[in-house]
Order: sequence, then structure tokens, then C-alpha cells
Amino acid sequence: MSTDLMPNRYRPGESNLPGREAELIARRDKVLGASYRLQYRRPVHFVRGKGMWLYDPDGRAYLDFYNNVPCLGHCHPEVNAAMAEQAGRISANTRYLEPTLVGYAERLAGTFPNELDRVVFTCTGSESNDLALRIARCASGNEGVIVSTYAYHGTSAAIAAVSPNLGDAVKLSPFVRMVSLPGPAGIPEAQAADYFETQIRSAMMDLNRRGMGVAALLIDSIFSSDGVWVDPPGFIASGAAAVQEAGGLVIADEVQPGFGRTGAHMWGFERHGIVPDLVTLGKPMGNGFPIAAVVGRRAWMDQFGATSRYSNTFAGNTVGIATADAVLKILQRDQIPQKALATSQRLREELEKLAKQRNDVRAVRNAGLFFGVEIGSEGTPAAGRRLMALDLVNTMRDDGVLISTTGANEDTLKVRPPLVCQAEHVDLFLATMERALIKIAG
Amino acid sequence: MSTDLMPNRYRPGESNLPGREAELIARRDKVLGASYRLQYRRPVHFVRGKGMWLYDPDGRAYLDFYNNVPCLGHCHPEVNAAMAEQAGRISANTRYLEPTLVGYAERLAGTFPNELDRVVFTCTGSESNDLALRIARCASGNEGVIVSTYAYHGTSAAIAAVSPNLGDAVKLSPFVRMVSLPGPAGIPEAQAADYFETQIRSAMMDLNRRGMGVAALLIDSIFSSDGVWVDPPGFIASGAAAVQEAGGLVIADEVQPGFGRTGAHMWGFERHGIVPDLVTLGKPMGNGFPIAAVVGRRAWMDQFGATSRYSNTFAGNTVGIATADAVLKILQRDQIPQKALATSQRLREELEKLAKQRNDVRAVRNAGLFFGVEIGSEGTPAAGRRLMALDLVNTMRDDGVLISTTGANEDTLKVRPPLVCQAEHVDLFLATMERALIKIAG
Repeated sequence: MSTDLMPNRYRPGESNLPGREAELIARRDKVLGASYRLQYRRPVHFVRGKGMWLYDPDGRAYLDFYNNVPCLGHCHPEVNAAMAEQAGRISANTRYLEPTLVGYAERLAGTFPNELDRVVFTCTGSESNDLALRIARCASGNEGVIVSTYAYHGTSAAIAAVSPNLGDAVKLSPFVRMVSLPGPAGIPEAQAADYFETQIRSAMMDLNRRGMGVAALLIDSIFSSDGVWVDPPGFIASGAAAVQEAGGLVIADEVQPGFGRTGAHMWGFERHGIVPDLVTLGKPMGNGFPIAAVVGRRAWMDQFGATSRYSNTFAGNTVGIATADAVLKILQRDQIPQKALATSQRLREELEKLAKQRNDVRAVRNAGLFFGVEIGSEGTPAAGRRLMALDLVNTMRDDGVLISTTGANEDTLKVRPPLVCQAEHVDLFLATMERALIKIAG
Repeated sequence: MSTDLMPNRYRPGESNLPGREAELIARRDKVLGASYRLQYRRPVHFVRGKGMWLYDPDGRAYLDFYNNVPCLGHCHPEVNAAMAEQAGRISANTRYLEPTLVGYAERLAGTFPNELDRVVFTCTGSESNDLALRIARCASGNEGVIVSTYAYHGTSAAIAAVSPNLGDAVKLSPFVRMVSLPGPAGIPEAQAADYFETQIRSAMMDLNRRGMGVAALLIDSIFSSDGVWVDPPGFIASGAAAVQEAGGLVIADEVQPGFGRTGAHMWGFERHGIVPDLVTLGKPMGNGFPIAAVVGRRAWMDQFGATSRYSNTFAGNTVGIATADAVLKILQRDQIPQKALATSQRLREELEKLAKQRNDVRAVRNAGLFFGVEIGSEGTPAAGRRLMALDLVNTMRDDGVLISTTGANEDTLKVRPPLVCQAEHVDLFLATMERALIKIAG
């Protein structure tokens, strides 16, 4: 793992900043906790957002190819109107009867396979993963958790302890085991499923030998923080089945792949042809409003709920529900995932052309509008590839396009625009990327 | 502890419900996880809120004497306007420079003693307590946590495990120790501080003997779920100092007492004359918008932040910040805590009169607008007192006033209206309570 866990960030003294930004950073450092990080060598400062665009105080526009939270674009007027209208009527909690809550839960459950028919709301993806793990441990009677090598699943104490991506300072739980993915291990696609299943079985054997058993396989089907490893579709299925046979639960972390991000499907796990036991939702659910959920099989939800009260004051409040309901309706009505799929195909084709032209665009991977683009030529040392990816991200930022990096070596561009991205935005992104590549590598 | 952990709730079949509500409950049970609970024997169903009032679908008004989240009243137009205005402009995250974020953090820190000068935002009180515990363990190098006997601090795995109030089904951490409070133990006020300190020292000795040490004393200065034990002011100070001397951190859970709830002060810990190491905020912070925070001493925040990235996608987004900023400005501009203190004095005096008149109003305790009123005569068995409190709450609900119960035996009325409560609301609450007492007990 890279020693710098977030290479794409501002480091004091690294850049000459304009007075306005330098002053704001000084004030920020005086009052915010030191756990905060700013993105980019020269941090960005926006005062207005609209659709695919963010605007700085001087009115300069930046194309947003990074933010997956505002899936319908920044400041969506219809979503905001739904939020404001509900806030003016009532913000009720889930201990009161509320048809809006029930109606949205029904519509949300309707987008899942039939087996997944129960919903519990939370406020963040971290809370969803934390709750899912509590449910899995209650349902399985086991403690062990299996995640991918560089997984990141959230910020709570229990979830940070199963998120190796947070680095050495955040101690891993004695109950967690990491499994390698076939892609980064260089396994041919035909053997990917076997490789993954073997890793899982080996992790389960170790957990069993230590008396912990397996409570859950917790995976993000896009494997975002591992570097976006999505192919071949279905490679996780036999490993997931092995966990279920052993009495563990499969938790699909859909905080990033969910709500149409993968284009062809509403949920990322569908690409792999599996039905998980629990699914965790977050980021795009309210287009920015803090709302998240766990959707799961009735048996597990009932077993947990019969004994455990789970009372989350803000979660499921009617303002969040009305906002999320508007998002879901627009996603479905306007066929956003289908359009995102078409847009992603254009982006895929053009990036592949670029990869053929240039040795330093090493690989292109995507599921729908979530792309990982490996940077740096074969044979270049890891540190050099990482630096080139970082240079590229920052050159593009200076040229008005926002992306970032991911992966074990952080040499993979993380590209995930709002789903309302159009062909014209794809073309602008590509032109900016090509210009930046030429500028830094010729 | 009472075997029923939430007595004031709906149980299927217990009440004859109108068709509209029965149908909604059936739909709800089919789609929501079983961990949800509805309040009251006959659940309430509201479609509109305004100030101190909630309205059911037939237009009937209910006086809200229970909800501490909408501290400025339901659907506050100025707060909602701030939220809508910001949502229409930009919803930026904390990795971008954002003057609104910094300005609010400065104003918020300004309401605390000088030593508490660093802010980290989260989305819920649970997330705040979870993060505070992570910081305390990192800063102290210890693991042990001390809480009160019936403490409730939130829903995450780590925090549920130090929340004995959740009952036997939720396993306590091996690292937690519970301390008795002087009030429920019947200790005279003059000895309360000594009693509390002795409990703390004994818990620390046990933690040390097991090699865990003390990471944190985690307390809500209102001791809400223990039954609202607030007197004498200062009784927690020497126990808290003992923890700090031993290298542990004092975490003041201000999710309930914070933002002027106690009337005389902005923060509940100030009533006790202590300066904690970390303070956790939540519920009223955004008048309903999901926003929360940890405020703490720089040394601890820096130590954690230097090694640990804490990235909470929704936390500190500009829409939540603008909403919370409006709440804080209104609280200060309109002197809401000061007015709440005056209102609480009227309520206190009238409840004391009632307690003198009636044996079955056994004790009145409060800090500002957070009241605990013990119900049931001296000598009545615990189950009878609990049933009377429950009957009273439900009779008042049927008569249009909302409260609930708390405490080890759940025989204490929990009364905590929005802070904008006026004398006329106090009088209506009291008249309804007297009528209900006469109806159920003569």
C-alpha cells in the first residue's frame, strides 16, 4: 500500500495560493479537526453548482467528473423543491405513522429482487454498513468479516476496523480477513471466479480455526478503493455462495455502485448475478441530502429487530424521505441509468482509443459511469506511475475538470461523473485529459 | 431494568385502530425492518407541523411536549429558507474550500470554553459519540469506557456496546463499566459528588487490573435515559477530574442537553462547572436536518487527525451547515435559552404544586426545559408505577399532548418540549396532565 493514503491532497507550502484561499485555509486549520483533508495541490473553492458544473468565486466553471453524490447533477431544482416543500409541511420521525415513509420504502424495495423486501433507514453509508454488520453478526452468530485487500467501507469504529484502506494508523479488527482480487493479481478472466472463491474459502477456514466463523462477506461490487475491478461479471458469485453455505451473510455495499451507477442495472450486485443477504445504500440516494439505508432479507431483519431496538433519530425523517423519493422517481422516469450506460459506452470507446495511442494510458476499466484508468507505462516504477497520475489529476484540475485517483498504488484515475453526464461533457473531459497528458508527458 | 425496553409503544392487537391507521401499519410491517417501533398504544399520524403543534389527517392539533429535535419549533420558516437557499446555490463537501463551513465552525466553537476549539462534523449523534470514542482511545492509548447504569449513547456497533439501556439482546463491550448515579441510589445531595467519584475510581481500578485502562468517561449531563438526574449541579466534577488525572478523556454527550436545553447555559456540562475533553452534539443542531459534530481540545483532535483520515461524505456539506448556522443565529439572536429558562421555571413551580397535592406525582426534576416527573405513589410496586406512567402518557396523547417515559423503571415522564415553548403551552400541558391524572387515578 502507498505510504501516503490520500496522495491527491493539499499539503501546506506545496503550492503558492492566492491570498483569498490561503487566508481561508489558515482559518480552517485553526478551527477544524486535523482529520480533514483538502483535495488537489491547489484546493478548489466553489460558490455555485448547476448540473455537471461547479463555479469558483471568479465565475470560472469546472466540469465535475468526480462527484457521485449529486447523481442527478448539482442543485437539481425538482429534488430541491421536493425537499423544501416537505420541510415546510412536516419533518416527522419514524415513531409516528407516515405514509410518505412507507410509500418510498415500498418503491425502493420494488427495485430489488423479491427476496430483498425489508428496509431500515440510516443517515450515512457508514451507518448502513455498521448496521448491516450488526445484523449479520446477530443472524449468523459468528464474528468474522471478509473484505477485499484495499476495501474502504466507512468511518464508524466497527467499520473503520474492517477498512484496510485507512492504513496502518487505524487498527484492523482481529475478526477481519482480506482477500485478493483476481484482477490486480493478474489472474486470467477465465480463472477469476475460482481464484476469488479459493481466497474466500481460505479466509473462512482461518476464521473457523480461530473459533470466529464467518459473519459476513462485505464487498463493493465495483471494488472502488482497490482500483475499480469489475470484470468479468459474475466473478464474485461462487465465493459469495460459499459464504452463504457456511452460514455467513453477503453484504453488498452499494454506496458507490448503487442507484444506476453501473448503467445496465439499478444495483451493482446484479452485474454479478447474485442476490445478497443485505444491501447497503448511501451517497446518491438523496442527491446530497444525508439519507442512507439497509435493504435485506426478511429473516435476518426480523431476527435482529425482534430483540434489538434500532432507533436513529434523523433517519427516515420525512424531509429526507421526500428528497430521496424525488431522486428515485426522476431516475426511473427519465431513464437515467439507461442514458448513463449509453454515455459510458462513448467514454469507454474513446478511452480505449487513447490507451491504444499512448503507452502511459495502461488500462481502462468501468462498470457504467464508474471508470478506473491506469496511468503510467508498463515498466515505470510504482512511484513514477503514482506521480504521473497525480500530475494528471492536478493538471486537469487547473484546466477545469475534476477527477481523482484510487487503487493500491493510487495510479488509477477515478472517474465517476454525475449520471446526467452527456456526450458533450464526455468530449470535453477527453479533450482536457489528452491536453494534460501531452503537457506532462509529451 | 424493566423487561420491556420501550414500554410506550404500539403492540399489535392492543388497540382498536381506525382503518386508515391499521392499513398503514400493515403496509409498514410488510416493508420496514422489525427493529422499528411506533410510539403510543394508538400510534400517532401527523401530516403537518407548525411551532409547538402537530396536526393529524383530520386537522386535530397535538401539543408537542416531547420532541427536542425541532428546538425552534416544527417547520421553522427562517431555518427552512436558509436550507432551501443554500441547496439552490451549492451543496459542497469538506474537501473543497468553503467559507460557510469555516464561519459556522468558528461561531460554534465560540460558544464553548476556550480550551474546546476544534470541530469535526458528522451526521448523527451516534456518529459523534462513535468518533469521540475513537479519538479518546487514540489519545489515551487505553480501551476502557465508563458510562452510567442505564446510559444510551447511540446506535453504531461500538456505541450500542456501551449503551446498557439497549438491554440484554445487545451485548455490552468487555471494555465498558457502569457507574451508579447518586440520585437513584438515594444518596443525599451533600454526598453526591463523593459517591459518584468513588464509583468512578472503583471502575477505573477494575479496568486497570484487567489491563484496559480508562479511555473515556462518556456521560450525558442530564442523564436522560437513567431518568433525568441533574442535581446537585457539580456532582460529576470530581469524578470527571479523576478520569482526566488517570489519562482518560471526559466526553460530554450533549446530544440531548446541548444548544440551550438546560436554559441557563448553552451546554449541559457548564451546569456542572467542568470542561470536558470532547463534546458530542446532535439532535437540535439543524432543527431536524441531519447534522452533528464533535467539538474538542486541540491536542486530542490533532493526535487523531495526524494519523487518521476521517472522511464523512455528507457531514459538513454546505446545506447542513447553512441550516445549522441559521439555528445557532436564531438561538442567540432571540435569546431562546434564556426564554426557555423562564418558561421552565413556570413549569417547575406548577409541577411542584401538583406534586404537593398528589402522592402519585412523586418527584419533579429538571434542568431547563428537560423534565423528569416520577409517577406512582411511594409504596406502589414498580410494575404499578410503570403502568400508571404509561396510562398517563397515553391518556394525554388521546387528549392531544405528546410526552413519553424514561428511567430504570420507566415510571418517569420525559417532558422536553421545543425550546420555543411559551407560558400558554405550559398551562395547557399542566391542565391536560391534571385531567389525565384524575381520569386514571381519581
